[in-house]
Amino acid sequence: MANKDVTDPARMEKIVSLCKRRGFIYQAGELYGGLNGCWDYGPLGAELKRNLKDYWWRKTVQERDDILGMDGAILTHQDVLKASGHVGGFSDPMIDCKTCKGRYRADNLDNLECGRKPSCHPGEHKECELTEPRAFDLMLSTKLGALATDNDPKAVAYLRPETAQSIFVQYKNVLDSNRIKLPFGIAQIGKSFRNEINPRNYTFRSREFEQMEIEFFCRPEDGMRLTDEWLESRLCFYEEIGIPREKLHILDVPDGERAFYSKKTYDIEYEFPFGIQELEGVAYRTDYDLGVHQKGAGKPLEYFDEETKEKFLPHVVEPSAGCDRTVLAMICEAFEEEELTDEKGKKDVRTVMRFAPRMAPIKAGIFPLLKKNEEQVRICREIQKKLQPWMNVFYDDGGAVGRRYRRQDEVGTPFCITVDFDTLGENGEELKDTVTIRHRDSMEQERVPLDSLLQWLLERVR
Amino acid sequence: MANKDVTDPARMEKIVSLCKRRGFIYQAGELYGGLNGCWDYGPLGAELKRNLKDYWWRKTVQERDDILGMDGAILTHQDVLKASGHVGGFSDPMIDCKTCKGRYRADNLDNLECGRKPSCHPGEHKECELTEPRAFDLMLSTKLGALATDNDPKAVAYLRPETAQSIFVQYKNVLDSNRIKLPFGIAQIGKSFRNEINPRNYTFRSREFEQMEIEFFCRPEDGMRLTDEWLESRLCFYEEIGIPREKLHILDVPDGERAFYSKKTYDIEYEFPFGIQELEGVAYRTDYDLGVHQKGAGKPLEYFDEETKEKFLPHVVEPSAGCDRTVLAMICEAFEEEELTDEKGKKDVRTVMRFAPRMAPIKAGIFPLLKKNEEQVRICREIQKKLQPWMNVFYDDGGAVGRRYRRQDEVGTPFCITVDFDTLGENGEELKDTVTIRHRDSMEQERVPLDSLLQWLLERVR
Repeated sequence: MANKDVTDPARMEKIVSLCKRRGFIYQAGELYGGLNGCWDYGPLGAELKRNLKDYWWRKTVQERDDILGMDGAILTHQDVLKASGHVGGFSDPMIDCKTCKGRYRADNLDNLECGRKPSCHPGEHKECELTEPRAFDLMLSTKLGALATDNDPKAVAYLRPETAQSIFVQYKNVLDSNRIKLPFGIAQIGKSFRNEINPRNYTFRSREFEQMEIEFFCRPEDGMRLTDEWLESRLCFYEEIGIPREKLHILDVPDGERAFYSKKTYDIEYEFPFGIQELEGVAYRTDYDLGVHQKGAGKPLEYFDEETKEKFLPHVVEPSAGCDRTVLAMICEAFEEEELTDEKGKKDVRTVMRFAPRMAPIKAGIFPLLKKNEEQVRICREIQKKLQPWMNVFYDDGGAVGRRYRRQDEVGTPFCITVDFDTLGENGEELKDTVTIRHRDSMEQERVPLDSLLQWLLERVR
Repeated sequence: MANKDVTDPARMEKIVSLCKRRGFIYQAGELYGGLNGCWDYGPLGAELKRNLKDYWWRKTVQERDDILGMDGAILTHQDVLKASGHVGGFSDPMIDCKTCKGRYRADNLDNLECGRKPSCHPGEHKECELTEPRAFDLMLSTKLGALATDNDPKAVAYLRPETAQSIFVQYKNVLDSNRIKLPFGIAQIGKSFRNEINPRNYTFRSREFEQMEIEFFCRPEDGMRLTDEWLESRLCFYEEIGIPREKLHILDVPDGERAFYSKKTYDIEYEFPFGIQELEGVAYRTDYDLGVHQKGAGKPLEYFDEETKEKFLPHVVEPSAGCDRTVLAMICEAFEEEELTDEKGKKDVRTVMRFAPRMAPIKAGIFPLLKKNEEQVRICREIQKKLQPWMNVFYDDGGAVGRRYRRQDEVGTPFCITVDFDTLGENGEELKDTVTIRHRDSMEQERVPLDSLLQWLLERVR
């Protein structure tokens, strides 16, 4: 197994720089000095993230009979999170430095930056005088309603710390409004919030983040088996979005390190340039969640099995993936500086983002060979109109075609379509009404007939 | 123009009931008595909302060259909202009743429910003793970081009250990372939060809501014209999602009622069963927003025009649509109780949701005529596997086909596919490998060959 401490800060720096320069990711509130732990996705990042979420939804909800989607509110009733154990129980141990007034996570002192004075880092600067660890609440709260100003404790609501609780508290409604039998899942994509003491590693550990979670309800005797099956299914998913199995590490979380209610937990980790870190957890949570809400709300949440006439609380297997983390993993995995040597022996470096085509923010570049050739431009615009309802494409007529290729390589566009004089039939009937398609990865080119272009692309980018 | 006060509470009650029963919308935190002003979308509501957002993104970002997407954080730096005028300035006038301690919006006393004692309604109960109106802050705040517990005013961050500000503060980054010229737009879909005093009208006025906003940057002289063009374009959009022009009302907001910086504002309103209410605003905001951020951040936000060599702050036209409101409008528009008379003269009522096919949560029902016919079931499952990567479909083999149609009518599925003995070729070669498609709206049926089924559907549901 790879070493967690092997990192490549220089590579990470290049990735961060490209993300800003080409519009994948910007710091939130950057204009005002930045809001720590919060990020905005620029035009390309927004497309990349959309592609990930859409593909997850398609594979998880649309293509399965046994999983239903939902979309719950972020604002959460305090009683929900009291019952779940989050209120009062969801915290990180924290220490203060009496000298510099910095505040740090006690379980992770070595590789953290100091929030206040980077020069004064515990473990390096012995003058630091540290307090004993104390609990630091990770939940973000707000106050709702006309009474909010009156400091009424009932006005407190929380920003959900995980999407899972929305699912548990609506499980009965979903069951009642759908004729569905165990085992079945409820899936959700949405934002969650945690007041991380030290947000770090770019977008990896942030205060606002999006999750893609499935709560898969089953009979108690099926929980262990389904946990293993879900692990396998999730590993396939990562392969399909361009994260190869050999870059993923599976941590079978040992006894004593799992949540007390979990009988089995796998962490799926990825080799980021800043170390091996978790992308997703697949946890067998038993009937803990439904149990605490049944008790907390005082309402029965049991499932009645029509065939066996049994009544029981379903058990739950939870594959819970971080959406922003997976986007970041895709970016890190895709980034490559490829050394090229041309026919004259001249060396050059090509920056290329090798996104899986189905994840790429732009599916195809569309270029007229000559910007001034009206017929080429007209055909390009026709291609664009034909492709746009189906995929994100980019028309570019600026500069030499080679430079246009490189610009698309840098944002990971898998295919570039060039309309040239052959397309116009100026070099014979055989190539008339065909276009050149240049492949991002191999840089090889082929001719494709105009009338099969959409189909050709759909087969490769979906 | 229709009267704003014409309402149909009985119709609304039926709609709310169907939404709960079939899994479109549930109250957030219902298990714990509900969180006022917050809603969860169930399986069908989540699909409907996804379809709306996807279609908006496709039409706004994907199919246009001149609009880029982004996806900004909800948590917002306080300085952003100080500069924009929201901090201290974003409030509703509120009055208290000294007798019952209820709190009400001063500008809308007549048709509001009392937050505390529904029996004590100002304007009806003269015993109420009302205070003078005072400002009630509509922004929700939270505290971020390790210092949050120390009551440091710098730890305050806001949940954005509109997605627009994320766009304005990243406008320069988007411009710098894309080779794009005026006029161009930045589009965003995302959640916003307002501490509504009296959330009401089902999901219409809620505390957590999703917006679909475009900030369209242009030269100052083009602002008025583009505002009119955007109004027209947005009206077409509503038509395309099944909200006909004749149910929309355009309010040209008069001088004195617009925001002080706006030179022109149109409200697009829809005839809800609870009255005529706003779906979207199309506002010409001049250079107000970029101006306040340029001043607030102390950083130049000007645009340099390469051709004219001019440097200036672009003006902005903002089409800002409410996503949840539009979902609710689609639901209200779709709902119909149709009286049917069969050939024997027997009367019956069919509940049908007449969603535009591209918006329908389920695109097709797939039924074997006989559940026990293995060959019919096998073909159905093949159809399902073929359609699922492209659209949401629903397999159903429970009960008579007529009942299965009605269940799909009630959730708005535009097409139902039945595999029968004709499909198997038992009634001759002519109908072999064809299926029956039954249309939701006309209830008419036609035969479609199996091998053109996907194409037939794609042409009708996208």
